[in-house]
Amino acid sequence: MKKISESAVRRLSLYLRLLRGIAGDQELISSQELAEPSGSTSAQVRKDLSLFGSFGQRGKGYSVPELIDTLERILGLERRWRVAVVGVGKLGSALLGYRGLSERGFDVVVAFDVDTEKVGTELNGIDICSIDSLSRVVRERGVEIGIIATPPEEAEGIVSRLADAGVSAVLSFAPIELGNRDPMVVRTMDLALELEGLTFALTSARNGDS
Amino acid sequence: MKKISESAVRRLSLYLRLLRGIAGDQELISSQELAEPSGSTSAQVRKDLSLFGSFGQRGKGYSVPELIDTLERILGLERRWRVAVVGVGKLGSALLGYRGLSERGFDVVVAFDVDTEKVGTELNGIDICSIDSLSRVVRERGVEIGIIATPPEEAEGIVSRLADAGVSAVLSFAPIELGNRDPMVVRTMDLALELEGLTFALTSARNGDS
Repeated sequence: MKKISESAVRRLSLYLRLLRGIAGDQELISSQELAEPSGSTSAQVRKDLSLFGSFGQRGKGYSVPELIDTLERILGLERRWRVAVVGVGKLGSALLGYRGLSERGFDVVVAFDVDTEKVGTELNGIDICSIDSLSRVVRERGVEIGIIATPPEEAEGIVSRLADAGVSAVLSFAPIELGNRDPMVVRTMDLALELEGLTFALTSARNGDS
Repeated sequence: MKKISESAVRRLSLYLRLLRGIAGDQELISSQELAEPSGSTSAQVRKDLSLFGSFGQRGKGYSVPELIDTLERILGLERRWRVAVVGVGKLGSALLGYRGLSERGFDVVVAFDVDTEKVGTELNGIDICSIDSLSRVVRERGVEIGIIATPPEEAEGIVSRLADAGVSAVLSFAPIELGNRDPMVVRTMDLALELEGLTFALTSARNGDS
């Protein structure tokens, strides 16, 4: 398979989200219909999907259920993933109550914190364990993905400990750069980046561009 | 200006973040150096930047300070933006304490909630006002961007009220689709989408793809 850029993967996720929303209502979809809500173009859609050997029928479009299957397979979403949330402050607590995760195939199976008041309790049915037990508990519960919601100064150390415990991927909310630690995959959730997408749109609109 | 795709804007933000990190240490940067940490290619970098008339000098690279100026201007970041957070639950509270916003030019100037216990208090120096006063307060304080951290069922109504009050752009954390309301720009922060970027990487690694 050719190397796929991060932004192409992002588009595939957007196509899948859209397709899941219309599944059952619609059997076929055109590249144009897929492009519009994903902020893409129909040429881009066709190019993205052809990378994976998914070809629509000329003049008819793509089969919605087939395309869902293909995209789920490519994105690794034909199965569920076991997630740990590290840090149960405001953000971490919000994550433990976030329905959008399990709906999309991500099960938060455990959380970690340093606060002895929180350790041993549960939130939304999820156990909060001591950060000191992280390595053991991560292995016992088969955690595959860690979400880091600790203060930024803790994040680097937590990533190392998760990597040592065999966690394959990390999504960090700490607004600092965390390098990839091959083979672990690390991503940073960057709120400012999303806001910059908005300010770009506002600025180009004010300048009279389309 | 040509229409710029959402993913191109995203790349511009990533280039800018990288450039700001090295400003002062380095005078010139090659397209290759810009590409690597942004998950892009040097050809893509050159193409992205040429859209805005920013051309590196052959064999030397781009001027770091010039490129920062150009990208800030394109992304609308040569100025600061006034932001309101709607919903001061766990997520909203976390946002009011998030340093990454003001560091990148976004000032949270007010927050809104329905809870009478919270209304009239402040958190991290930010006033929490009643949601009933939203239209008036948004106008008085010149809010330009709204961040929605309410329960999903409230989000749609809040977007309408923000639009009526003249807010230009909204970033929503509610895991539901909110259509654009021209001229207001609406984006949804999608945690599952970020996680899908990780599962794609894990899945293609396991399949032995590069």
